Amino acid sequence: MNKFKFHLKATHNKARTGLIETAHGSILTPAFMPVGTRGSVKAMFPESVKSTGSDIILGNTYHLMLKPGAERIAKLGGLHKFINWSGPILTDSGGFQVMSLSDLRKITEAGVEFRSHIDGSKHMLTPERSTEIQNLLGSTITMAFDECTPYPATFEQAKLSMELSSRWAKRSRNAFVTRIGYAQFGIMQGGIYQELRQKSAQDLTKIDFEGYAIGGLAVGEGQDIMFSVLDYAPAFLPEEKPRYLMGVGKPSDIIGAVERGIDMFDCVIPTRSGRNGQAFTKYGAINIRNSKYADDNSPLEEDCPCPACVNYSKAYLHHTVRVGEIIGSMLMTWHNIQYFQDLMSRIRSYIEEGKDFDFCS
Amino acid sequence: MNKFKFHLKATHNKARTGLIETAHGSILTPAFMPVGTRGSVKAMFPESVKSTGSDIILGNTYHLMLKPGAERIAKLGGLHKFINWSGPILTDSGGFQVMSLSDLRKITEAGVEFRSHIDGSKHMLTPERSTEIQNLLGSTITMAFDECTPYPATFEQAKLSMELSSRWAKRSRNAFVTRIGYAQFGIMQGGIYQELRQKSAQDLTKIDFEGYAIGGLAVGEGQDIMFSVLDYAPAFLPEEKPRYLMGVGKPSDIIGAVERGIDMFDCVIPTRSGRNGQAFTKYGAINIRNSKYADDNSPLEEDCPCPACVNYSKAYLHHTVRVGEIIGSMLMTWHNIQYFQDLMSRIRSYIEEGKDFDFCS
Repeated sequence: MNKFKFHLKATHNKARTGLIETAHGSILTPAFMPVGTRGSVKAMFPESVKSTGSDIILGNTYHLMLKPGAERIAKLGGLHKFINWSGPILTDSGGFQVMSLSDLRKITEAGVEFRSHIDGSKHMLTPERSTEIQNLLGSTITMAFDECTPYPATFEQAKLSMELSSRWAKRSRNAFVTRIGYAQFGIMQGGIYQELRQKSAQDLTKIDFEGYAIGGLAVGEGQDIMFSVLDYAPAFLPEEKPRYLMGVGKPSDIIGAVERGIDMFDCVIPTRSGRNGQAFTKYGAINIRNSKYADDNSPLEEDCPCPACVNYSKAYLHHTVRVGEIIGSMLMTWHNIQYFQDLMSRIRSYIEEGKDFDFCS
Repeated sequence: MNKFKFHLKATHNKARTGLIETAHGSILTPAFMPVGTRGSVKAMFPESVKSTGSDIILGNTYHLMLKPGAERIAKLGGLHKFINWSGPILTDSGGFQVMSLSDLRKITEAGVEFRSHIDGSKHMLTPERSTEIQNLLGSTITMAFDECTPYPATFEQAKLSMELSSRWAKRSRNAFVTRIGYAQFGIMQGGIYQELRQKSAQDLTKIDFEGYAIGGLAVGEGQDIMFSVLDYAPAFLPEEKPRYLMGVGKPSDIIGAVERGIDMFDCVIPTRSGRNGQAFTKYGAINIRNSKYADDNSPLEEDCPCPACVNYSKAYLHHTVRVGEIIGSMLMTWHNIQYFQDLMSRIRSYIEEGKDFDFCS
């Protein structure tokens, strides 16, 4: 069994490429992780996800703990077996989702008490329970339970929130069951305040996680503010550990974040927008529902290897998305994930060749 | 280019196996044709449909003429190219669908005037236009435009309806553009009246189609009455031409119809019921939504080669169908089509080995 290990391969300015070894295989970084919320990257077979160049996918603790349940998945042999994905899986802590339940949750020092959005049943998520759930799922990379500081937040609010996350990070780490090739990442908070970001990083690196996420960004602050935090925050984290920017993002977000030293990303954009008819292309994003595509016999992209581009015209995608045929979602999703993975591959090549990014930004 | 040709291979009592050669490849009979209503066998890639052993799929003239439009598909290179299916395609005439619009249509000698269920726009479907549309689509097998006699119908109603269908069959044939390897099938009507079925068959065989369908069954009369018609009707048709029972059916319908001399079938049951959570298995149909499957780690069927059975547990299918994940529809549909094609394959083997059917009836 491989140990969990991050090998830094090449750097260009602040951008870096690397390889993460895990119990479930390795991950080329910078990496984009498609989101498999409830045990499926929507409208995709796992083999198809893999074929796009995706090394790792993400699962959502909040959704999986409610349905089908963490103990159930454990009894069925773990999440990898359940969803037929043998590669690495990262699970979030559930914190972000339960915080979003606004009226349905109560935050205390102990954790978050909340009601299910499905049936109103009462649940409690704590650093210990979140870590236990992720262990039951068999996650390759477990995330510490944190409070995602909302935007905007005053310095005092961001400070209190960050300090709570630091205490929760410690409790998460204590609850983590070490297994060879598995990892737990801490999550930096601190809002848009450099001093708090630095303090958060200090707290977390003292705990000594296998990797670190930057949390509390991509929550409505906009790309400029996000980049301004990323101008300094990654450097507070140890160089020899992977850095993961949670919930990001659009291609231009990813490019700018890689330029600022980020190694890992996850986002629902390629899958969700694909189902809604948005296709990413090197000429920019297009909405395939637009009537100008009804008679367009050309593929989305001439040189894309995905089946949507190899086997079908824009006219077919237009038709199937418009009438709501499932194959429309299947093809659009596949294309978008392929687009994101090809982007990551180009990004890695550019870094290794020491070239500045000149695409999509 | 292959000529359109039906080779009768083996018979066992009234059951028969054969091979149909077409411009787009050959079809083993008895054959089951998955339904690709609007340019997609729902929730399936064409390669996956092919991999189940499906030689031919069906497209619906009514749906395709409205969206995306027959002239448009022709301009885009025809239905085969549009939907990425290089094998044979049979299209219905649109007659059955427009008749079902009840309040929205008017039948005259000329044809059927109707309003679109989508936007209320006015259209006219005639034997000539239906045949033209199917030619524009590039259908391998074009169906004559007929009136599907409803059930129940008096002798007089069934007679008038059948006679109209015979006149429309003649007009359909006159409008048919002959191409090597392509075919047009006439449709027998006559309700449950043997004398009318015989007259209909005489009318159609005089026109001399490449194959014949038996229409007006599976319209609510029940299996007993359907079988009682099939006890005599197929023998009215020429032995050396394929016989197609439209819109049928459940496995037991198919088995009983093959025993009565039918060669081809189409039905939405495997696809539609799959999306609704019904799985066909050799132990009978099961509803995967039933809570008893929540913890069931066994596959739907141990020896089924489809990905739902090879890669996933009933618990996963239960979960994904219940929460509405698209992969649930993708897997259940694949399994059901595989089940139907494996049934057809077993049926063909039994006939060729001269064995009576001892399964699923």
